[in-house]
Amino acid sequence: MPTPEKALIAEIRRGVTRAKNSAIRTGIGDDCAILRLPSASKKSVDTLITTDFTLENVHFRRNWHSPESVGHRCLTRGLSDIAAMGGDPFAAFLSLALPRDVSQSWVRRFISSLLALAQKYSVTLAGGDTAESPSGILADIVVLGTVPRGKALLRSGARQGDHIYVSGKLGGSAAAVLAMQKKPDRKLNLRDYPRHFFPDPRIELGRTLRQRNLASAMIDTSDGLSTDLAHICEESSVGAELESDAIPRASVGKPVHEVDLSLALHGGEDYELLFTAPRGKRIPSQIAGIPITQIGHITRRPGIFLTDPDGVRLKLRPQGWEHFRKA
Amino acid sequence: MPTPEKALIAEIRRGVTRAKNSAIRTGIGDDCAILRLPSASKKSVDTLITTDFTLENVHFRRNWHSPESVGHRCLTRGLSDIAAMGGDPFAAFLSLALPRDVSQSWVRRFISSLLALAQKYSVTLAGGDTAESPSGILADIVVLGTVPRGKALLRSGARQGDHIYVSGKLGGSAAAVLAMQKKPDRKLNLRDYPRHFFPDPRIELGRTLRQRNLASAMIDTSDGLSTDLAHICEESSVGAELESDAIPRASVGKPVHEVDLSLALHGGEDYELLFTAPRGKRIPSQIAGIPITQIGHITRRPGIFLTDPDGVRLKLRPQGWEHFRKA
Repeated sequence: MPTPEKALIAEIRRGVTRAKNSAIRTGIGDDCAILRLPSASKKSVDTLITTDFTLENVHFRRNWHSPESVGHRCLTRGLSDIAAMGGDPFAAFLSLALPRDVSQSWVRRFISSLLALAQKYSVTLAGGDTAESPSGILADIVVLGTVPRGKALLRSGARQGDHIYVSGKLGGSAAAVLAMQKKPDRKLNLRDYPRHFFPDPRIELGRTLRQRNLASAMIDTSDGLSTDLAHICEESSVGAELESDAIPRASVGKPVHEVDLSLALHGGEDYELLFTAPRGKRIPSQIAGIPITQIGHITRRPGIFLTDPDGVRLKLRPQGWEHFRKA
Repeated sequence: MPTPEKALIAEIRRGVTRAKNSAIRTGIGDDCAILRLPSASKKSVDTLITTDFTLENVHFRRNWHSPESVGHRCLTRGLSDIAAMGGDPFAAFLSLALPRDVSQSWVRRFISSLLALAQKYSVTLAGGDTAESPSGILADIVVLGTVPRGKALLRSGARQGDHIYVSGKLGGSAAAVLAMQKKPDRKLNLRDYPRHFFPDPRIELGRTLRQRNLASAMIDTSDGLSTDLAHICEESSVGAELESDAIPRASVGKPVHEVDLSLALHGGEDYELLFTAPRGKRIPSQIAGIPITQIGHITRRPGIFLTDPDGVRLKLRPQGWEHFRKA
């Protein structure tokens, strides 16, 4: 009987065959993958690379998340980082360590879902590593992408006076975590919390912002608005003013309701794009089908401040998103 | 007080600053690292990429391995894969998940050792991911390298009649594991088992074999001779005949003694290079200071056979190296 590890390798090989990509010369079956990168052609590009862990009981729980959700979210973590640079992803590498109690069917469903998302964005799963895990499922996803030379959208480009925008709505992913923590034995309906279980990376939006030269700085909201905006402010040496009324809050659950402001401000893993743009730029209210909302502006003075509808202005401290640590 | 995770990021930032590399535009501090790959220049190259886990209680034990040894071995795993393709490494990415019981000093010593090895081979640590681990130290190293276009030494190039060679001596790393398993409370003297605690990747040897066009197929001995030769045979659709007398056995311990043949055949993590070369090629007995030994030849008929000095010929089954699984 094949072990989960062998089943995994077989699934990956099948996936690699399905998603042939001329940039990948040798995928699985040698010491390294060989990439003939687009930069070898005449077009001058920079290569983007990002790595992200997906750890059981840190980023997901086996009784809360289906293998399909875990596989989808695992790859989204990497794709979203490429989107946040305005890049085009082209290859992924998956390192997966499995404990002995994981079934072949779990692995098959995990990989199928990951590969379906990869295929949607023409990303080839080109290699990785497998190991036996001493405890819990451990995945590390590496995603490679390209961007025209010198055109990557950095965190460091925000300037005083720039407007601050966010795509989609915030807090929907954290709301699912809260709901699961409250009733650990009840399975959530995935459709009530789509941004948590199957978040779509904002690849097309990121690419459009870069192509049209609209954004001055960008990051994805993986750690939550307050933390991710603090990253932009730190790397750009600026501060920010936000209007609490303007923060777009996700609608979740059944009956459908808007999440609390605190979840929209601090909840992570929404994988939306947070970006700044010079005041004069006209930013459409929708790009690539995704609503775009202005939520504040950049200041020269450091610190992030939030003003409520009554005019009360408070310092907003980054509250790092800690996944299920406290669960 | 800074957490181990923050200490890690600080150490990595320092390391990145120390090892400036013109190919790396933005390392830590953005969503992705940006690489301006050598292929963007006139020289046409392929890019190599490899990922390898280093998991506590699978690949190392905290009471057996110093943080310096763990850091060194973690990067060697990736560098050795680049060596096995005949490539030149240039960048590494480290994903590290730490449990709460790891001290800042452990992290500092781990990173310092990893960075020292990186610097030796002009490799820039260009990014990665950090997380809190639910249990045990978890590292995943990604190494990138280059090789002139189409010149990577693959596992699939072995042909009938080719001679089989191995660098250095085998079984020394597994001998250390055996010794530690026998006396779990005794600290081994690192100098008695250098190939286990501080294995040097065979970068220069791999590059020389590729430059002089000497090898037809190559792999590194990370899983042990019997398993790694089986990989070459499988990918090349050939078999092999080995002479047991010719297998170079490591000298280890105190008093110094040669390891048993079974360790040299099946013990993993020696990170030597195993390669084949057409019969007519003259292979020096030493390359880049490393002894090279002919241990057998490639056959058309599948299967790997071992002949002892008395002429007894036995089928050699790959016995996968399972690290400390049985410990």
